[in-house]
Amino acid sequence: MKPPLSSIAVWVQREIRLDPHPRGFHLIGTEVEAALPELREVRVGLLHLHIQHTSASLALNENASPDVRRDLETWFSRAVPEDAGHWRHTLEGPDDMPAHVKGVLIGPSLTLPLADGRPALGTWQGIYLCEHRESGGARNLIATIHGD
Amino acid sequence: MKPPLSSIAVWVQREIRLDPHPRGFHLIGTEVEAALPELREVRVGLLHLHIQHTSASLALNENASPDVRRDLETWFSRAVPEDAGHWRHTLEGPDDMPAHVKGVLIGPSLTLPLADGRPALGTWQGIYLCEHRESGGARNLIATIHGD
Amino acid sequence: MKPPLSSIAVWVQREIRLDPHPRGFHLIGTEVEAALPELREVRVGLLHLHIQHTSASLALNENASPDVRRDLETWFSRAVPEDAGHWRHTLEGPDDMPAHVKGVLIGPSLTLPLADGRPALGTWQGIYLCEHRESGGARNLIATIHGD
Repeated sequence: MKPPLSSIAVWVQREIRLDPHPRGFHLIGTEVEAALPELREVRVGLLHLHIQHTSASLALNENASPDVRRDLETWFSRAVPEDAGHWRHTLEGPDDMPAHVKGVLIGPSLTLPLADGRPALGTWQGIYLCEHRESGGARNLIATIHGD
Repeated sequence: MKPPLSSIAVWVQREIRLDPHPRGFHLIGTEVEAALPELREVRVGLLHLHIQHTSASLALNENASPDVRRDLETWFSRAVPEDAGHWRHTLEGPDDMPAHVKGVLIGPSLTLPLADGRPALGTWQGIYLCEHRESGGARNLIATIHGD
Repeated sequence: MKPPLSSIAVWVQREIRLDPHPRGFHLIGTEVEAALPELREVRVGLLHLHIQHTSASLALNENASPDVRRDLETWFSRAVPEDAGHWRHTLEGPDDMPAHVKGVLIGPSLTLPLADGRPALGTWQGIYLCEHRESGGARNLIATIHGD
């Protein structure tokens, strides 16, 4: 349990700017890892990713078939329809309030285990940007690496 | 990457008691930050908030328009209706089992990045207590601050 | 705020193999805690649990009535139906794409506060494996303990 004497606590925090993405679910893992070279120096730790917006989310899911990402968009857009008739917050456009609901359902953060210099994800797990607006623009992430 | 010699690991854990709130989505960020003066001493770190209940949740969403919070309540109460007819767990009242479903959908915890003494949230992000019961009573949070 | 001189940073990471569970919501807290004897040595900290799969999730909810777990399965299977007609990703069976949607809705990770050697959960909170496939097989968790 006792860490070796050479143990060094690592805290790194970086802002990552994501280019605009169309509405839908998008793989961003390659981009995120490229922006965080410090990951390679962490033996054991955690990576926290936080999106600073209320109409986009982060998720972890299948990294292979594009149909999975299309089906996710289909399900969420049917479950939270723009034309539901009961929305009051409509000033920012018909896609805005559904985007807030999806943001609450999926959440703004991911915490990933780090092992031997990389996220210890399953074979099929990829990091998603879930863009809930038609024209959400660039999105800002705060990445916090903490480890040993 | 190496922290300065004066680096001090901070671990603070506090219980925060929230007064009873009516069913719905409520901004609690001011109250939570006031209960955690130690936040100001953290240069980089994470704040973990955990609600110790199964029929209330924590979320992060729009901190301006009250209509957003009303529309969230409307959507969740339609998506998980009390009169669905398929509930078996009804002993604790018609709002109880829907509250558990919403609790699983939204989740009991938030992890927020800390930078220069405060949560590094987006301009529009506010911390929500999501109260899923009609009379949920006071709610208990465990706040854990960890940083440098 | 300053930790005592004897303060020792603890980082422990373990893989936990869960035996196959049928589709539904299952309490796994006893099994998880038994696999992590190091929890007892943590005065204050965090436990991060991560499931390395895209069709199963982790959640925290009621640990008493089995009806709550059955009602959760009923609601999620109605909200994300296999026979929706709009799925494109159907090659891996009718329960596969709904499993991915539920995985995104519930999420793959839990972060729990640790206090005095155990998770600081509420009286009624229990850790769930949410198995979204009919025959999901054994599931792999990465548990990361960090504390003081």
